[in-house]
Amino acid sequence: MGLIDKKRFRSTFEAFSEIGATDAGGLHRVALSEPDVRVRDRFVDALEDLDLAVRVDEVGNVFGRREGTDPDAAPVLIGSHLDSQPRGGRFDGQLGVLSALEAVRVLADHDVETRRPVEVVNWTNEEGTRFKPALMGSGAYTGAHDVETVLSTADDDGVTLAEALEAAGYRGDAPVGAERDPHAYLELHVEQGPVLEDRGLEIGIVEGILGMSWLDVTISGDSDHAGPSPTYTRADALVAAADVVTAVRRLAGRLDDDVVTTVGEFEVAPGSINVIPDTATFTVDLRSYDEETVQAGVEAVEREIEAACDREGTSYTMEEIWRIPHTEFSPEVCDVLERSADAAGCSYTRMIGGAGHDASYLADVTDAGLLFVPSVDGKTHNEREFTEWTDVLAGAELFAEATIRLADGEHPGNS
Amino acid sequence: MGLIDKKRFRSTFEAFSEIGATDAGGLHRVALSEPDVRVRDRFVDALEDLDLAVRVDEVGNVFGRREGTDPDAAPVLIGSHLDSQPRGGRFDGQLGVLSALEAVRVLADHDVETRRPVEVVNWTNEEGTRFKPALMGSGAYTGAHDVETVLSTADDDGVTLAEALEAAGYRGDAPVGAERDPHAYLELHVEQGPVLEDRGLEIGIVEGILGMSWLDVTISGDSDHAGPSPTYTRADALVAAADVVTAVRRLAGRLDDDVVTTVGEFEVAPGSINVIPDTATFTVDLRSYDEETVQAGVEAVEREIEAACDREGTSYTMEEIWRIPHTEFSPEVCDVLERSADAAGCSYTRMIGGAGHDASYLADVTDAGLLFVPSVDGKTHNEREFTEWTDVLAGAELFAEATIRLADGEHPGNS
Repeated sequence: MGLIDKKRFRSTFEAFSEIGATDAGGLHRVALSEPDVRVRDRFVDALEDLDLAVRVDEVGNVFGRREGTDPDAAPVLIGSHLDSQPRGGRFDGQLGVLSALEAVRVLADHDVETRRPVEVVNWTNEEGTRFKPALMGSGAYTGAHDVETVLSTADDDGVTLAEALEAAGYRGDAPVGAERDPHAYLELHVEQGPVLEDRGLEIGIVEGILGMSWLDVTISGDSDHAGPSPTYTRADALVAAADVVTAVRRLAGRLDDDVVTTVGEFEVAPGSINVIPDTATFTVDLRSYDEETVQAGVEAVEREIEAACDREGTSYTMEEIWRIPHTEFSPEVCDVLERSADAAGCSYTRMIGGAGHDASYLADVTDAGLLFVPSVDGKTHNEREFTEWTDVLAGAELFAEATIRLADGEHPGNS
Repeated sequence: MGLIDKKRFRSTFEAFSEIGATDAGGLHRVALSEPDVRVRDRFVDALEDLDLAVRVDEVGNVFGRREGTDPDAAPVLIGSHLDSQPRGGRFDGQLGVLSALEAVRVLADHDVETRRPVEVVNWTNEEGTRFKPALMGSGAYTGAHDVETVLSTADDDGVTLAEALEAAGYRGDAPVGAERDPHAYLELHVEQGPVLEDRGLEIGIVEGILGMSWLDVTISGDSDHAGPSPTYTRADALVAAADVVTAVRRLAGRLDDDVVTTVGEFEVAPGSINVIPDTATFTVDLRSYDEETVQAGVEAVEREIEAACDREGTSYTMEEIWRIPHTEFSPEVCDVLERSADAAGCSYTRMIGGAGHDASYLADVTDAGLLFVPSVDGKTHNEREFTEWTDVLAGAELFAEATIRLADGEHPGNS
């Protein structure tokens, strides 16, 4: 039983996955690269095959609209992104767009009437690899990013997003943002973490996304010859920075259960085998759902840097370059997802996500919901990214179920 | 009193220091750069003014020979290097060459007859910045480096040492290496460390140079998204490497009194603010006079890497890329230096040096000696490198005194 056509869904997933496929089974489909343009064309074809009204906005977000019975009702927006990380996986983003496409196909299969229109969307440049920042299309749609700024953003070769969209045929003329805010937004995504797999569950109903702080730190010491400099004379920027890396890791277990901390960028200068480093620059990524915990974390990191610099005779600067509050998804949409999961017979848990998604921006303007399917070994952003097909099907089934509920549709099982 | 002409010595030092001078009071006189060629010309002029027989060997080492009274006696070789680090200091190397020049001028001033010939030398490319490795000219002279290999060594622009020497007019025709090994070699150098300044002494009589091991280490973990990856799932190459940096520092105080340890190169990949590093590569420089301690240090570093990798779930490779035994300078030359210091009324200590010098290679083929003058704040390899002029004069006086003794000269004070 079930709403979705499993065979069709799988063959669609496989056909889309051929566009930009890597030898190792991943996807290399960076935003507005040749394969990203080809997959957009394929997506538009699929929307048109369903007689959806296709529109492309000025930043290249692509929408396919299926009308509802109530001309005054705000639409339900469903989708994700088709671009990938460089040598990324086949599930991140693509699975959400294709689950949304399948949901609308289900509506067509059963001639389901919905009171609300349903719109399928592919957001431009979620990954932010070629054009920065990430979440570009959804951020422009919700007003978080200025449209002109986004359009004039250049890649490393100086090509602007506007030029790349023009060349690709995806510089649309629809204004960016909704004429009226959608009634709800729903997105399916791979978890990109280990929780669902570890707990043996099919579905994560995401109640929110961790808040986050990004810090830039520079530690300054003295460079000296590694041979004739006794330890007591040294002010080694790397020794102090290594202390901080260890301390930052320890904060993850200390501040609160959900805190994760990462030092991702790390460089030393002058970087010569027999010269004591005089400079270490690094970043700190600190996340927690609780905003006071994030603040306490930033303060704890600075105290650790101070202590490390005291010990080593170095000095430091620390700058917070980004702070984002946690995202709280719509409790109503979470309830719909829970009822849909019960109806679809899926195993699930409510959970907090660790990374931002297009749904995070949509939560600023509408009742947004996000559901996760498991990631094997929690792997993401690489070609080994994988989700068991039984889990994919459970997610797509629940997604179709929830879409009908959110759009006030007559459930085909009840007709 | 005293042998040297203090005013002449200082004016010579200042004139030489103008060649390649930096605004900040340092020297930028990389081997066979335009200023290095100019200072060589100035050096040859000074040798010729003393009627010394100048010869240039195939790798550009420049010698000025003053004959002795005994035609069968092996010469005493004295000198150092005139090239500098990029934006380096005025004392490192230059002070040794000019002290040697002053010693021969003292011989001329007083018509001192020595039984042994005295040769003043400027070694090519001690610093090893443009052409690698360091200690190139002295290493070729003593047979540690193959002459053809040295001549075909290219800089970053593909220019070989042979071509650079040819263009500079310093591709000599004298064969590299002595017809017969010198009777002794003597070099004055700045300490490049804090010991003499801290102890308020003018002179260090260097009995040896620390042995050394250089290690290349790579730690491999897993890259993952910084948000949705709980700490228990991580294998963070940087966290493990930071543990090792801390442990390597701790070994300096633990293994033995004279042990110094440095991590100088350190890189992580992929190096993105929200991605857990999967690779950390770094070097370890570990020095001690005792060779068993160096060996124990290498083994201790590997145990620390193993422990860090065990904790973090990472793996590693470690390769020893260079091991050099300690240098032991000639006890006889040390005794001559000590008697000369007593005669010159200098305060001194015997000590062990931390870094290699041209004298280290010379110790392989002759009775070599090295004397240090203090470095203010232990600074070297930068423009702030400084030695108080009173200490410079004490060193030059002792150097002239010792040169006469080593060459079996009639001391002018005794005539």
